Amino acid sequence: MWPPGSRAAMALTVDFDAEEIWLAEDPANAARPGVLSQARYGVERALPEILDILSRLDVPATFFVCGGDAERHPRAVESIVARGHELGHHGFTHRSPHLMSRDEEADELGRGLDVLRRFAPRIRGYRSPSWDTSPNTLDLLVEQGLDYASNLMDATAPYRHPAHHIAELPVHWILDDAPHFWFDTSSWDRTIRSAREVAELWQEECDAVHDQGGLAVLTVHPQIIGRPGRLRMLERFLAALRADDGIWFARGAEIADRAHAATPAPAETS
Amino acid sequence: MWPPGSRAAMALTVDFDAEEIWLAEDPANAARPGVLSQARYGVERALPEILDILSRLDVPATFFVCGGDAERHPRAVESIVARGHELGHHGFTHRSPHLMSRDEEADELGRGLDVLRRFAPRIRGYRSPSWDTSPNTLDLLVEQGLDYASNLMDATAPYRHPAHHIAELPVHWILDDAPHFWFDTSSWDRTIRSAREVAELWQEECDAVHDQGGLAVLTVHPQIIGRPGRLRMLERFLAALRADDGIWFARGAEIADRAHAATPAPAETS
Amino acid sequence: MWPPGSRAAMALTVDFDAEEIWLAEDPANAARPGVLSQARYGVERALPEILDILSRLDVPATFFVCGGDAERHPRAVESIVARGHELGHHGFTHRSPHLMSRDEEADELGRGLDVLRRFAPRIRGYRSPSWDTSPNTLDLLVEQGLDYASNLMDATAPYRHPAHHIAELPVHWILDDAPHFWFDTSSWDRTIRSAREVAELWQEECDAVHDQGGLAVLTVHPQIIGRPGRLRMLERFLAALRADDGIWFARGAEIADRAHAATPAPAETS
Amino acid sequence: MWPPGSRAAMALTVDFDAEEIWLAEDPANAARPGVLSQARYGVERALPEILDILSRLDVPATFFVCGGDAERHPRAVESIVARGHELGHHGFTHRSPHLMSRDEEADELGRGLDVLRRFAPRIRGYRSPSWDTSPNTLDLLVEQGLDYASNLMDATAPYRHPAHHIAELPVHWILDDAPHFWFDTSSWDRTIRSAREVAELWQEECDAVHDQGGLAVLTVHPQIIGRPGRLRMLERFLAALRADDGIWFARGAEIADRAHAATPAPAETS
Repeated sequence: MWPPGSRAAMALTVDFDAEEIWLAEDPANAARPGVLSQARYGVERALPEILDILSRLDVPATFFVCGGDAERHPRAVESIVARGHELGHHGFTHRSPHLMSRDEEADELGRGLDVLRRFAPRIRGYRSPSWDTSPNTLDLLVEQGLDYASNLMDATAPYRHPAHHIAELPVHWILDDAPHFWFDTSSWDRTIRSAREVAELWQEECDAVHDQGGLAVLTVHPQIIGRPGRLRMLERFLAALRADDGIWFARGAEIADRAHAATPAPAETS
Repeated sequence: MWPPGSRAAMALTVDFDAEEIWLAEDPANAARPGVLSQARYGVERALPEILDILSRLDVPATFFVCGGDAERHPRAVESIVARGHELGHHGFTHRSPHLMSRDEEADELGRGLDVLRRFAPRIRGYRSPSWDTSPNTLDLLVEQGLDYASNLMDATAPYRHPAHHIAELPVHWILDDAPHFWFDTSSWDRTIRSAREVAELWQEECDAVHDQGGLAVLTVHPQIIGRPGRLRMLERFLAALRADDGIWFARGAEIADRAHAATPAPAETS
Repeated sequence: MWPPGSRAAMALTVDFDAEEIWLAEDPANAARPGVLSQARYGVERALPEILDILSRLDVPATFFVCGGDAERHPRAVESIVARGHELGHHGFTHRSPHLMSRDEEADELGRGLDVLRRFAPRIRGYRSPSWDTSPNTLDLLVEQGLDYASNLMDATAPYRHPAHHIAELPVHWILDDAPHFWFDTSSWDRTIRSAREVAELWQEECDAVHDQGGLAVLTVHPQIIGRPGRLRMLERFLAALRADDGIWFARGAEIADRAHAATPAPAETS
Repeated sequence: MWPPGSRAAMALTVDFDAEEIWLAEDPANAARPGVLSQARYGVERALPEILDILSRLDVPATFFVCGGDAERHPRAVESIVARGHELGHHGFTHRSPHLMSRDEEADELGRGLDVLRRFAPRIRGYRSPSWDTSPNTLDLLVEQGLDYASNLMDATAPYRHPAHHIAELPVHWILDDAPHFWFDTSSWDRTIRSAREVAELWQEECDAVHDQGGLAVLTVHPQIIGRPGRLRMLERFLAALRADDGIWFARGAEIADRAHAATPAPAETS
């Protein structure tokens, strides 16, 4: 499935999530500067650092961005595209599709695309907020002209959905930064893991996925991974993988191309 | 209590749990493809890997399966039986018996047995969802013709219940994978342990139980333990135990036989 | 404050807690054999092991017992007293005094004493369930003829309460086993620490308290610490402290005597 | 931004929090001596130890104190000032500003200042309880004559707010002791980290912030960090940083001076 010389693949995905994640959690957060300061950190401090790390390591990435966040932070989104990274769809707000009617979900997708297309001519991939989807999601993605998604936890290699022209790049909680690092006053019972502990978690999973010849999809959020001590770990972690010639680092769209090419065309969907 | 040459025993139990665990947690999960994708991972990706690991190590196991999951995934259940593992009862749905009336619990047990007997002629063991039981459970197991259970946390060796012809294979949270690895959006405050950390937890407990001459019952779930990094740990963990000739690996039914043989017949129950 | 040759002190306290802790948490637990099996483990399996460890190491301990648990398990309580350990008061039920009226709390104390005095002629110490007390507790302890308590987190050495003839043996969450090991279905978000991790937590705190010349009060519960891997850690942990001649191991009452002797008599209380 | 010879800065901030934090969490805690004993520990046992550590290491610190706690513990506050540390504003009660009307928040700030000025002639800095602020906070701080705050998570170096004469000394959960160590009966699901684990978390973050040339703001609470094993870690942790001549240890006000000097005067605020 992978390019010649590569035995496994690695996708670095960045869920850009600025203010939208806090507003979806609780609209009252709009009046909490302390809470929103974390979003600003992600955009203003962490994003440039992350882009620099990716440049230093020559790692291509896919940034999934909510439409609302893109409207609020156009220069940040421009800086992502300018560095050659892929822009993906992350909803308009950061609300979960499984809580929406079909019309609401279609509207969210359409509004998000309208905004994102101002920054990149073609948007192909969709990652829902929280990796949740609805029974309508695949149909709606086809209708909107997208051709891959990255939401499900059913495999460790990409595949094409049987009844839709949508490739899936599967994810998992282990390879996300949020379950290990998240903390806020409404998540008071959480444990903040050290960067070393998270490197161990990621290493165990990536090593095993790569030994299978699979795809490891790492998901990070600027306001979470962007703390200085964590960024240092991220750079070391990626550098070690980058030094392995057998691992193909690719944007989501490039991986989706491979999945589409490897699978017979699906039956038409209603 | 153990066969000649064995000083302690090890039972690997696999709670098959596919969709039923998510539907019992919240019926609305039926419309959440992201949530259900974890169940599919367990059935389609993890189960074949687990079966291969068990074959490589020559470890016999007992798979506790909900009737609903068996109806949905007959080929998976057939593959378990075909490899020589034991099939056990895990309820029809994944709802806890202590929340049911006597009639409901009897009905769950009967419906589950009807399905499971299509795959294996004799079902002897019962593990309740969540290791919870009701005051009626032992009576109902006798009525249904089962002769062992694996739900209680009152010992580190098997025994026969004083008033029922039911052997008990005791369990504990430490030797389960779920308390250490579980994570989903409705369990957002949980900490995902690394495979190394869980190996430490399991090792401490298994070593001490085996030094007592007891029975360690390890419980894993395909959708949890089945992540590549965790499977690698599981294989290493089991291989080390397998290399110890003094530890008897056995299916639940074989251990139950020992417990029944070691105990005088119980008084009749009403 | 300590006997000649001792620079610091160590009190091993065992909160016996059998069924009462589960019934106080939820009366519906009376009909959950799976839940109650943990209590039975503590009484039948763990307690004898703990008593043997204490004998091997010649460690005197204080066992705080609920009246309700003592009525249910008289032989277990007799075995504690027979080994020379001190019996202390832990309420009649395992409900917290701060949720009771003065009369209810007085009644709990009186009922508990009536039961405990069947096993030991003189009961001197009181530990409340959950280390919570009410504004009436000290007055009531004086009325009931007790002369020490072990509930507060305000010091690392024993002292006498300024207005009551009650010595306090201060405690802390770090030196308890429950915050590190507890797990049940209604505490699903908890992290089970390994025995090694808990040894680290205890060691850090005990070492520092002892270097101050203070008193470290370790609190364990048979159904929690009693798992084989944890008991092995407990024995190693206590053995290392026991090997230090400068540390005085004592029952609560002996430590209370020191605190009373070191402090001028308090003013009379109303 | 830093004094000649210094490449980075370190601010040790101590949130004094005695009874106010418990009363804000639940007014019923006023009748729970067990809960309040933790506050007393912080004031009577931990504070003197912390002051001694700071003297031994020659570390200047900033103590943020609630007005209510200062009224209750005047001698403790005097001891802080007598050692040359800075006194900062931490509200009158420990309630979060985002839950208050503008008038309530103004009143809290005024009442707190009235009390704190009895101990130190000039109070310049404000840290809100829980690092939450309201949309009115900066305006109110200017009105009350304060000139710095330490609440937001948007940077790793101090800066001046664009429209207010208020410097910000940014914070983060990682460099707080509470998320790692907190435990009480109403936070039963939390994990208590070992001192070693927290040293790792702090070290990772401080090292990286200092390598950036930034400011690391460490936040500790006497009743939390004050346990003997944790104090030992704190002393070791600070001593290692203190041995690095390139790191400037300073009080909040000194750091605020640098931020004000480095930034052009802001536009006037309404």
